[in-house]
Parts: sequence; C-alpha cells; structure tokens
Amino acid sequence: MKRLSWIAVDWGNTHICAYAIGDSGEALDTAFADCDTAALHPSEFEDRLLAVISSWLYENQVTPVMISGVIGSAKSWSETAYLNVPCTPMDPTATVTIATSDQRILVRVMHGLCQTRPEDVMRGEETRIAGFLSDRPDFKGAVCLPGMHSKWANIAAGQVQSFTTFMTGELFTILSDQSVLRHCTKSLGWDDGVFLRAVESALLDPVSVTAKLFGLRAKALLNGTPHDMLKAELSGLLVGAELVTLRAIWDGPKVAIIGDREITRLYQIALNSRGCSPTVFDATKALIAGLRPLADLPTESSAAA
Amino acid sequence: MKRLSWIAVDWGNTHICAYAIGDSGEALDTAFADCDTAALHPSEFEDRLLAVISSWLYENQVTPVMISGVIGSAKSWSETAYLNVPCTPMDPTATVTIATSDQRILVRVMHGLCQTRPEDVMRGEETRIAGFLSDRPDFKGAVCLPGMHSKWANIAAGQVQSFTTFMTGELFTILSDQSVLRHCTKSLGWDDGVFLRAVESALLDPVSVTAKLFGLRAKALLNGTPHDMLKAELSGLLVGAELVTLRAIWDGPKVAIIGDREITRLYQIALNSRGCSPTVFDATKALIAGLRPLADLPTESSAAA
Repeated sequence: MKRLSWIAVDWGNTHICAYAIGDSGEALDTAFADCDTAALHPSEFEDRLLAVISSWLYENQVTPVMISGVIGSAKSWSETAYLNVPCTPMDPTATVTIATSDQRILVRVMHGLCQTRPEDVMRGEETRIAGFLSDRPDFKGAVCLPGMHSKWANIAAGQVQSFTTFMTGELFTILSDQSVLRHCTKSLGWDDGVFLRAVESALLDPVSVTAKLFGLRAKALLNGTPHDMLKAELSGLLVGAELVTLRAIWDGPKVAIIGDREITRLYQIALNSRGCSPTVFDATKALIAGLRPLADLPTESSAAA
Repeated sequence: MKRLSWIAVDWGNTHICAYAIGDSGEALDTAFADCDTAALHPSEFEDRLLAVISSWLYENQVTPVMISGVIGSAKSWSETAYLNVPCTPMDPTATVTIATSDQRILVRVMHGLCQTRPEDVMRGEETRIAGFLSDRPDFKGAVCLPGMHSKWANIAAGQVQSFTTFMTGELFTILSDQSVLRHCTKSLGWDDGVFLRAVESALLDPVSVTAKLFGLRAKALLNGTPHDMLKAELSGLLVGAELVTLRAIWDGPKVAIIGDREITRLYQIALNSRGCSPTVFDATKALIAGLRPLADLPTESSAAA
C-alpha cells in the first residue's frame, strides 16, 4: 500500500464511510460500517471509529482523521457550530479538534451550516459543496445534493447564499417501507418512462400530488399495475414535488448535482426532461476535496474548543 | 341488558370494533379489540370475531353480524366486489354471506366502492356514507371521512358520483413516528392557532409544503420551538395540502364530515377558517345506520357467493 497521509470520514445517521488518503491525494482504500449513530453514547464514538480505521494507522505516528456529517450535532460526539448563511461552505476556524485516548489519531470535525429564514440546517453537505467549489471556484448557480434529505444550495461569490432541504428520499423510504404503499412498491425493477411522466405530472399539477399517492395502491388493486412501475411513479411524484418548488432555480442558472451514481442519474434525467442540463460531480471526490484543507491545518491552530 | 337484535362490526387493518344493537336500534354495548388483520389466515377470522362478540350471543338463536371494512378485501376473510361509481353507496345484492362453523351467527360482509379514472378504492367508508344518506336522503355536496386515509366523496341523487383518497393521517403518523421529525413532533400538547396558520400557508402556497417539512426539524434545533407547536404545524401542513386539492369542492357546495370526535374537530376548524361550515355526523351512528339494511335482509336472499 502506498503511504497513508490522512483519513477522510463521512459519518451519517446510519453509517461510517472512511477513505485512506495517500500522499498524492488519491484514495488508497475504503472502509464502510453500519452505525446507529443516535444510539451511541459520546464515550463510544472513538472505539466505533477505531473499529473502522485502525488497520490503516501507524503505531508511532499521528494520522489526521477529518470527519464530516451528523457527528458534530448536539448529543453526538462533540458539538460543532452552525455557520449562518451567507458564508463560505467551509471555515477551518469553526471546526473542532476532539481529544482522543488513542494517540495515533488527530480527529477534527466539520461545522454545519444554518439558515434563519426560513429555518434550515445542514451537516455534511457543506463539506461536499466546499469540495466542489475547490474544483470550480467561479461556479454561480444551484448545487443539488440528492439523498434522504436532499439539499439545494444557491452559490455565488464562493458562498452558500441560501439553501432548502427536502425530505424526498426519506418520504420515499417510509412510504414504500412502512405505509399501505409497501404492498405495491416493492420491486427490484424500475421504469424510467414512468418516473419521468410522474415528474412531469407533479410539475404540471403540483397540488394533486398528495391525491395521487393512494392512487398507486388503487392501481395495483384494480389494474394489477406492476410494482416496478408504481415504485418509479412514487419516486417521480416525490422528486417532481421537490423540483416544482425550485423551478426558478433550475429553470435558468447553472445547476450542479453532487451525489451517488443512481440517485444522481434520476435527478439528471428529471432535469434533462425539463430542458436543464446539470453538471454532475462525484460525491466521494467532493467529500475528500472538502475535508483536505482540514487535514492540512497545523495541529496547534485548531485546539479543542 | 335489553334484547340483542343484531351486531354491527367495523373491521379495520388494526382493530375490530363491534356494537351490540338492541330491538329498538340503539347500541346496547361496545367491544373493541386490536387486530393485525393482514396477518390473519382466512381460517382464523371466525375465531377472532367470536373472541370479541361471543359473550353477546344467544345459544339457540342466530344473531346477524354485519361487517364493514377491509374484511372484504382480497386475502382477507371473503372477498367482496367493488361497485364502480357512480352508484349508491350500499347495494345489498353485492354483499356476501360467509359460511361459519358456529351456528349462532349469520355473517354478512359489505362490498367496497371503486373508481376507474383516476383509480381509487374504499372499503368501510361506503357504509358510513350510506348511513349518513339514510338520515339525509336529499343531501347534495361533499362528504369528508377523515382518518388514516381520508376520503372525500361527491354525493348527488343519493349516489357517490366520485371520490378521492388522501393518505393524510398515515403521512402524519409515519412522519411523526418514523422520520427525522420524530425528534420534534412527539407531544401530548397541541396548538390550534399553529395548526390553522399551517393550513392557511399550505392553501396559499401549496408547492412549498414539501420544503416546509424539514423546516420543522430546523425550527426545533435553531429556535427550540416547542414540540406541541411543531406537531400542530405538521398536521396543518398535511391537512392544508389535502384541502387545497379540493378547493372547488368545499368552497361552495355543502360539506358534511363523518368522523371521530377529535379528527372531525380539526377538519371542522380548518374549513371554518376558510369560510366553510360543514355539517358534522357521528361516525359510529353512520356505521350502524349503514349496516342496518343488511341486518334486515331475509337470510335466503343473500346466500354465500
């Protein structure tokens, strides 16, 4: 293995994903673990992290471990500030260095962003926005970060001017896993055409989206509509209900999508079908680029709060 | 106890609620039991029913047991037809008499209603609409049956002309129980003023409802907004998103609400705040009145399908 320089970590509500970064900035290795973060006591976070990354560590050397995500929220490992927008997505002076028992690691945690009116918060996406902007410093337009809670951020002058969170991914998950729709939207299949028609119907007639949800169940009962089509229609209705709120944002200025491959593809074809051609930027690349400036900080300057 | 004449049963996905009806039509007694109906094998339904009502039965006499609800759906006790709207809400010739091992009961199950375009189905609410119309045969307007899946039916000439189902109650339940909003909407308290303002905001700006859902979480984190207010706001946003779809229905013709007390009160104050004064009709009274014609059928005329 090439020489490890530092470790980038995305720590979410349900997972820890760590990347071993080499001297020349490339990811040498990846480690993933499920983690019910909300159930952890503050004293358990260090062991949980070490279980994922310890095989990469040197015995007689400190490895910087830079963490982005919910880890900085209240009741988590160590609370970090929210920076109020408009602001740059990443401010090294607002990060926190966490004291650890294990002397092989130096752990820094990113801050989050918040917005006062309307109220909104993000923890994790700001890192990816910072990474994207390090690659495209002059970008002006909207950045979409699709996921359980998709975020749309307005970017100008290297700053996040404002942002909006949608529970689209979580709505899809709980409706298809927990609601009466679970009987008709469980499928490994998928239908892009149905998805795009549902996006269009939500954009053309947004007030009827809630009336169309139960209709999926009725279509299964009355017409025997295949579950892969109903799953794609549910997804399209929810993505369309998100896009309709943002029409002024994507129907004009530049749009970039930062996300994992499949969810990014869906947002991309939805926007393409409406005449918008978003730039696509890989979420892992954005994460690593966003955390790199933290790894480069001198140890002294970021003593624990 | 006065003399039992017949038994009315509301059998839902999660409960059985039975009413012992006396000779003069009054409810003499009520019995309630939780029931995970979807988990029952067809052979288990009779025992499940008897566990709830057997204490009421006469040993040497057949008691009619008239059932409304999901019990008539596929994979349930005995499938009954959907009648296609427009039609009267109750057609005795489309009910099914179920053969039982226990000779003390005669069990009849109501049919459901369906609609082809857009696709929709109901099982249970048609009984309450029939009961309401037996009391108000000349009613013309909209009937709202709020609940996990609220139904709005257009009534004219004693028939259901069309109907629409909203997953409002289920959305509220899964969002406040399962989603990230569970951290900020758990409260025994309530705030009518917040509820009504959220209804109004959804009516004035329906496309922004999905963007406002995550905002509840952000208000809790940033402002410490009390959970009773956030719970009322979530409910108001969802009820408002339902009402905005139906503006043409309640903003003019007569409206009746058939429901349980608290959910009915919420829909009533929401509609009142928009200048609509709905009639309120008790859901249990409607159920019993809707099933009564089935109890009066001669045994021969409704032999099992």
